[in-house]
Amino acid sequence: MDLKAFIRNIPDFPTKGIIFRDVTPLLRNPAAFQRAIDEMTRTMHGLNFDLIVSPEARGFIFGATLAYRLGKGFVPVRKPGKLPYETVSVEYALEYGSAQLHMHSDAIQNGQSVIIVDDVLATGGTASAIADLVKSVGGKVVGMCFLIELTYLNPREKLRNYDVRSVLTY
Amino acid sequence: MDLKAFIRNIPDFPTKGIIFRDVTPLLRNPAAFQRAIDEMTRTMHGLNFDLIVSPEARGFIFGATLAYRLGKGFVPVRKPGKLPYETVSVEYALEYGSAQLHMHSDAIQNGQSVIIVDDVLATGGTASAIADLVKSVGGKVVGMCFLIELTYLNPREKLRNYDVRSVLTY
Repeated sequence: MDLKAFIRNIPDFPTKGIIFRDVTPLLRNPAAFQRAIDEMTRTMHGLNFDLIVSPEARGFIFGATLAYRLGKGFVPVRKPGKLPYETVSVEYALEYGSAQLHMHSDAIQNGQSVIIVDDVLATGGTASAIADLVKSVGGKVVGMCFLIELTYLNPREKLRNYDVRSVLTY
Repeated sequence: MDLKAFIRNIPDFPTKGIIFRDVTPLLRNPAAFQRAIDEMTRTMHGLNFDLIVSPEARGFIFGATLAYRLGKGFVPVRKPGKLPYETVSVEYALEYGSAQLHMHSDAIQNGQSVIIVDDVLATGGTASAIADLVKSVGGKVVGMCFLIELTYLNPREKLRNYDVRSVLTY
């Protein structure tokens, strides 16, 4: 099965010059969704970990499903104001301005091993910020896993210290 | 296993007088997360359907995982400006003002059967709006499934025409 056939390329979204990789056709096809999760599982071979950490919102789709399939815990990372309990946060640079991500301060126990999961690896800024969050509470980032990697944005430059795995590359 | 032991009650979030039911302790415990998904699966017994439809962001955690487990397709419902392709939308009333939800116009084929999944059923406003979205493109809502139902908000009054199932009630 060619998973790329289920990914829709949308030019100029969200801004001019960006080709958005839309995973919704893949999600609504049961066989393609199963295959995507199975392939992500396969790329994670050999990694030992306790928790999967993913950013809202599309990251939840892949991260939670993989956590269920692999019998691991799931930790959501969210935008400001969404998590109800005490949080830790990280600020990171965007092309213009900056953004903040939050995680519950008790989400990860000191010494627990974590994999960061998201649908698309673009510049690596979000993944790098989440790794900083995980480390700030004593977690160990043992890997990162993505369905899609946009190699033309050179995300691995920002993620040199991490074991990065992806299923599809553009 | 008492799943309620993994749900944290947070008073006055997001506004005064509301008790927020925080599912993050459940998600980070692998056995509790597995059990929650298994119990949701059990409540869906007897329902035949093609797709699971869930709103961002926490709905994605449960909806996508159930879709994977049951071999169904998954359709995300999102806030304005998030979906890259042509969308249909619905506006619905909140306590003060209103909100809008969007879904890709090609997400559901005419005649497909759908279950709506979310973590918490509160007033029923979101679920009812999603049902309207599904019907607007020719989909059939054969059921709704929630991990938590806040019966003191009388959500079933808004959902009289639907088969509503939930695992935990408060």
